[in-house]
Amino acid sequence: MDNFEFYRPTQYFFGQGESARVGERVAALGKKSVLLVYGGGSAVRSGLIDSVEKSLESFGIAYVAVGGVQPNPRAALVYTCIEKGRDANVDFVLAVGGGSVIDTAKAAAVGIPHEGDFFEDFYIKGMQPTAGLPHGCVLTIPAAGSEGSNSAVIQKEVDGKVIKQGLSSQFNVPRFAVMDPTLTMTLPDYQTACGATDMMAHVMERYFTNTTDVSITDRICEAVLLSIIETVPRVLEDPHNYGARANLMWAGTLAHNNLCGVGREQDWATHHLEHQLSALYDCAHGAGLAVMFPAWMEYTLNHNVMRFAQFAHRVMGVEMDFADPVNTAREGIVRLRHFFKSIGMPVSFKELGAREEDIPALLNLLGIDKHSEGHFVVLGRDDCEKIYRIAAHCDD
Amino acid sequence: MDNFEFYRPTQYFFGQGESARVGERVAALGKKSVLLVYGGGSAVRSGLIDSVEKSLESFGIAYVAVGGVQPNPRAALVYTCIEKGRDANVDFVLAVGGGSVIDTAKAAAVGIPHEGDFFEDFYIKGMQPTAGLPHGCVLTIPAAGSEGSNSAVIQKEVDGKVIKQGLSSQFNVPRFAVMDPTLTMTLPDYQTACGATDMMAHVMERYFTNTTDVSITDRICEAVLLSIIETVPRVLEDPHNYGARANLMWAGTLAHNNLCGVGREQDWATHHLEHQLSALYDCAHGAGLAVMFPAWMEYTLNHNVMRFAQFAHRVMGVEMDFADPVNTAREGIVRLRHFFKSIGMPVSFKELGAREEDIPALLNLLGIDKHSEGHFVVLGRDDCEKIYRIAAHCDD
Repeated sequence: MDNFEFYRPTQYFFGQGESARVGERVAALGKKSVLLVYGGGSAVRSGLIDSVEKSLESFGIAYVAVGGVQPNPRAALVYTCIEKGRDANVDFVLAVGGGSVIDTAKAAAVGIPHEGDFFEDFYIKGMQPTAGLPHGCVLTIPAAGSEGSNSAVIQKEVDGKVIKQGLSSQFNVPRFAVMDPTLTMTLPDYQTACGATDMMAHVMERYFTNTTDVSITDRICEAVLLSIIETVPRVLEDPHNYGARANLMWAGTLAHNNLCGVGREQDWATHHLEHQLSALYDCAHGAGLAVMFPAWMEYTLNHNVMRFAQFAHRVMGVEMDFADPVNTAREGIVRLRHFFKSIGMPVSFKELGAREEDIPALLNLLGIDKHSEGHFVVLGRDDCEKIYRIAAHCDD
Repeated sequence: MDNFEFYRPTQYFFGQGESARVGERVAALGKKSVLLVYGGGSAVRSGLIDSVEKSLESFGIAYVAVGGVQPNPRAALVYTCIEKGRDANVDFVLAVGGGSVIDTAKAAAVGIPHEGDFFEDFYIKGMQPTAGLPHGCVLTIPAAGSEGSNSAVIQKEVDGKVIKQGLSSQFNVPRFAVMDPTLTMTLPDYQTACGATDMMAHVMERYFTNTTDVSITDRICEAVLLSIIETVPRVLEDPHNYGARANLMWAGTLAHNNLCGVGREQDWATHHLEHQLSALYDCAHGAGLAVMFPAWMEYTLNHNVMRFAQFAHRVMGVEMDFADPVNTAREGIVRLRHFFKSIGMPVSFKELGAREEDIPALLNLLGIDKHSEGHFVVLGRDDCEKIYRIAAHCDD
């Protein structure tokens, strides 16, 4: 097991009715002036934004609101947030929405006290923030795990090229996360399934590691995956099943607060391979992951057959083939793809609306000529190309 | 799933070499004057206390030390800590040791700013602390999980009766926990096994619940139990196996930071039944739990056979008997007792050195005439007596 630090001082308020108490949560931190960040339609139409604003008002908390965050959140809106937040002299940032909204709020929170261009400095040059406003969230889409993570992903077009990039920083960890499963009951099936796929990918990026002897973290990873796999079909069967929605929502937090990753090297190649798909086609991140993860697994399987066999047996319920474990390992990937299909996810380029002829463009976006990808297997340009081709051809 | 709050702002510094950096950790919090609490022999003999003191000195941090904490930590030493801490005007409490040392430090941290008698007010009258000094720890015994929990257990003789009582409070959550598995390599086998048993009990107290549909927390509980069960024999086989020691140490934290308990009713009857054994016989808490938990399980099995069958199948690896699940459930308890025996734990009164004729005294200490115990099954005096008798007779 590798040495590690783990520090997740987020206060979770989990359960039905919690979203009406957000003003109380901000007031408890002694904050007076909030930058309120949200997305579009549904949070407004459902009355959630209204109720959050009323809750802030009832505690005498001023706010300035910025709506319109899109999936694959754009830097442009972060600049707007930074400007409005500075003008109003806010002392707190509150996100109401899913991962894109929370990531926009996180980027604004470190951007507001920063003198330079937040995207260029933190997301391109790789500088680390040295200050940040405190922030919290009301989560409406269980998926990205941003409510408990130290990372934020922002997208920007620079010199005609779409850059989708993440930043990890302790300043990105929310002070609180309000998690009310009832808010997720109206999510469309496709979005629910995309979210669940993203959660699973967050665990699997940490599961496939070369670090040996981290049994406790392995078992935690398997636990989160098993819970998601048994819960998603229940949610899709009955979207108003509170218990199922609640289990899925909390699983999404545990999938990405790094409890599943401590003490070991992590991979993250598949996330980066996918980011280029959603950058190029503006597809859902989860859908892109459902296509790319099995492809990555097929390509890397021989690097550690027993690790894939363990995944297949413990997570996908495949009987162990002791005579030839590679059969077990392969069957695990087959079942994972089958699971993704069963919850309505695409598993091939064609189903996603991606094109094989765009692979050079994807590799270009990935910038793979300048660096390698992944850790479980270190991938160069040829490897990444082959993985994209597996995804392009898997339904041949 | 029940609504819940979860807030564990402890910063973990995990890995070999971390204990030499404790001065840096205290300095990072801006603290200048430390009450240093430790136990006895081994931490001094090993040079650990010396190295911690040097680390504090190198960051210009003053300290006043109180050693001599015993297992089943006594209030008397907490009073000493409070007095010394006040005299030196400390702004931080640092525990170096296992659960008893950390709990003593926690009690001192809330006792120092409290005007009244800490034990009478917090531990007998049930008042909640409204202030507390910040505190941290260097963990040397993985067991109690106090490094990540919000609870502290202290023992005191009041009017000739030994009271062993816990206090849960957010002020009890450490600011940081330094966890260096190499410090645990010299623990005797018996103490290692007692610690592992305590960890397992922390999970099982949360596993047997009447709250339905908390799959994610169930799976996390099972993960922690599975990891402990597969790791303890490796530690006993080779006490200097770093990876095995590291897995066990982190499992102990996850077993009791309430990740295994969120969203559900918990039980804790077995802990209370055991506390009277260790109060009366001054036996190791873990050893008492190895005796009491299977006894409690036998007594409560019929309350929810399928829950015990799930435990038996998923944790103890028992094949499911679909025709008669009670066989699976019972076999789970048999295997648990067998596991405890295999790691050197007592499983009966006789092996523990307890006496059946003391059962009335145990019930008296428990104070069971004034309240009930447990939640999974609510236990009255007769129930508790029967559970003690199962423990007394299980090796007949």
